[in-house]
Amino acid sequence: MERDIFIIGSGQTPFGEWWDKGIRELADDAIEKALENAPCSAIDIDMVIVANMLAEHVSGQAHLGSMIASLLPHQPPAIRAEAACASGAVAMHTACSMLESGRARNILVVGVEKMTDADNSTITSALMGAADNDKDAPSGITFPGLFGLIASRYMHEYGLTREQLSCVSSLHHAQAMDNPNAQFRSPAMPDQVSASPLVADPLRLLDCSPISDGAAACILSTEHKSPLRLAASQITTDTTSITGRTNLTSFAATREAMEHALTEAAIERSDISTVELHDCFSIAAVISLEDLGFAEPGRGIELYQHPDPAFGINRSGGLKACGHPVGATGIKQVVEIGKQLLQSKKQWGLAQNFGGIGATCCIHIIENLSSTHSHV
Amino acid sequence: MERDIFIIGSGQTPFGEWWDKGIRELADDAIEKALENAPCSAIDIDMVIVANMLAEHVSGQAHLGSMIASLLPHQPPAIRAEAACASGAVAMHTACSMLESGRARNILVVGVEKMTDADNSTITSALMGAADNDKDAPSGITFPGLFGLIASRYMHEYGLTREQLSCVSSLHHAQAMDNPNAQFRSPAMPDQVSASPLVADPLRLLDCSPISDGAAACILSTEHKSPLRLAASQITTDTTSITGRTNLTSFAATREAMEHALTEAAIERSDISTVELHDCFSIAAVISLEDLGFAEPGRGIELYQHPDPAFGINRSGGLKACGHPVGATGIKQVVEIGKQLLQSKKQWGLAQNFGGIGATCCIHIIENLSSTHSHV
Repeated sequence: MERDIFIIGSGQTPFGEWWDKGIRELADDAIEKALENAPCSAIDIDMVIVANMLAEHVSGQAHLGSMIASLLPHQPPAIRAEAACASGAVAMHTACSMLESGRARNILVVGVEKMTDADNSTITSALMGAADNDKDAPSGITFPGLFGLIASRYMHEYGLTREQLSCVSSLHHAQAMDNPNAQFRSPAMPDQVSASPLVADPLRLLDCSPISDGAAACILSTEHKSPLRLAASQITTDTTSITGRTNLTSFAATREAMEHALTEAAIERSDISTVELHDCFSIAAVISLEDLGFAEPGRGIELYQHPDPAFGINRSGGLKACGHPVGATGIKQVVEIGKQLLQSKKQWGLAQNFGGIGATCCIHIIENLSSTHSHV
Repeated sequence: MERDIFIIGSGQTPFGEWWDKGIRELADDAIEKALENAPCSAIDIDMVIVANMLAEHVSGQAHLGSMIASLLPHQPPAIRAEAACASGAVAMHTACSMLESGRARNILVVGVEKMTDADNSTITSALMGAADNDKDAPSGITFPGLFGLIASRYMHEYGLTREQLSCVSSLHHAQAMDNPNAQFRSPAMPDQVSASPLVADPLRLLDCSPISDGAAACILSTEHKSPLRLAASQITTDTTSITGRTNLTSFAATREAMEHALTEAAIERSDISTVELHDCFSIAAVISLEDLGFAEPGRGIELYQHPDPAFGINRSGGLKACGHPVGATGIKQVVEIGKQLLQSKKQWGLAQNFGGIGATCCIHIIENLSSTHSHV
């Protein structure tokens, strides 16, 4: 980072089904919460970056930058950033660059998605926009189908069993019970996951993140300080289409983003005490743990089978149990990591947000300057 | 600008109806042209910013960052930026910030739109996504309808006649005849404009920019120099909805962006010898000339009635005659201004790109360092 960037305010709506709120209202709620705990007021915001994937397809609403900027009293400049399910983190990355450039000093980053207004087939086809419309879609495959293929291949290569895989969503559900913003605050035992309806073999309903409404907001600043410093923001890409991959059980974009992020933050992987990772499907969590280097290939599941109390994995409940309003997810992850670090007094946390089948990966590392280990 | 940013390569496809090419092929063609005249090669690109408005709605394709990055041999990081019809310029602005931040040294900015694959009603509703879905759309009004209201009000306030307004598209058509990339290289006399079919009273078919396919690309660099320097990049917003405006005959976002851009470039308005402005509808060109300060309110039409050979207005043919593949337009304007400055040996040019009814405005000022007046 060319300048120190601090998270000076953050907030989110509870994720879930918001039948009485639209994009504007959800964004407004998250912004209000972010401003409440910030040392600046709304008119100090000099740029807005909005993350959203689906509004054009699902609600016929583009141009969310201008629309969200209208929620502030002074109509600041605004841009929408999109990279499918990585839209949230990509918006954070865009905001970091704008702050580092000196063009802005206090940026509001808002991720918002309204998914429940559309029927299932509209949402399913809109989400397939994250894959390649020419190369993947014509086969009729859906996004759960793509991750079903990946899970099958992973099971074939590493001998992962259905019963083992069920530990992933089960832990996410257990952890969401402590998160008042989570969509599902109910336990799901591994055998319930295994017995839930089949969606795309071997993936079952409880392997899949849900359709969610919600918004999350962060205020990033080079002007004001806070205990939470963004220590790294890295983005990488891979082929949009699954047909371009030589390996289905590891995502190169995550591996590369992680190396860059550790270098940028100048820390070791082992310094990190909590991660929010992109479990759009249970198998994605296992693969991500391996690609981030927290487990050897084929052994990511062990971190779910025998959770380490000193290493948090998706304590928010992850995408599965906290919910996955697409554009909001990457920002909610950063909000969550900040909250967890302040609560635990630990120093380093990481958020990994990817789009498509790991075709865009964006990693943020956050430092808690008030931790017991911090020297600042 | 915190660092000097140069346009080191640029190119575009001809705009028009490309029945045999999709988003990927159009983008690839523009990228190839931009790389052809650049002093760097494809693998020197360290970031890609893609501008696109409609692919999600019209083609079911999101995630264009990763997709366009796959056209390069090394899959660099990528983001899509969107602000309706201002997507192109907003992507340029994002690229400027990333270069100024030091995160990248050579950025490929690509704008692409594929509009002809969809039927008229799909495109019309997708374009209404640039306005406010809650406040504007429920009345059933279309985008031509919104600008029809604006034109009516302008005529009421300033006495502009139908015959006068027809000079706008007529000049754009005349100028497009010299542009090999223009969609319409045929003259349109003012009486032909006035007699063309009514679209949204008082606007007629030849007042409206067309449905177009096409792509434009720029390579911006802080590493390599060229005679073309980006001297200002400014973005502003206004209410997305027309219902939020107190004035229909002037767009505050353009006025504000222009003041900021002149300050950033440290020049006077009168230094500018050529402009590409956002004539999505003929009336928008008239209003833009006034908001940019090149004419007094109510007198913008005079610059079309009596064109000044020393001051270029939409020499490309503008959106009307060169075509308006939405995401490509803002980048094509910058490409064009660069070309015009090199040909004319003049020093300063300006591109004004707006989204919705002036709800996002983005202005770039370009300096030709090889002009006869330049001291560099």
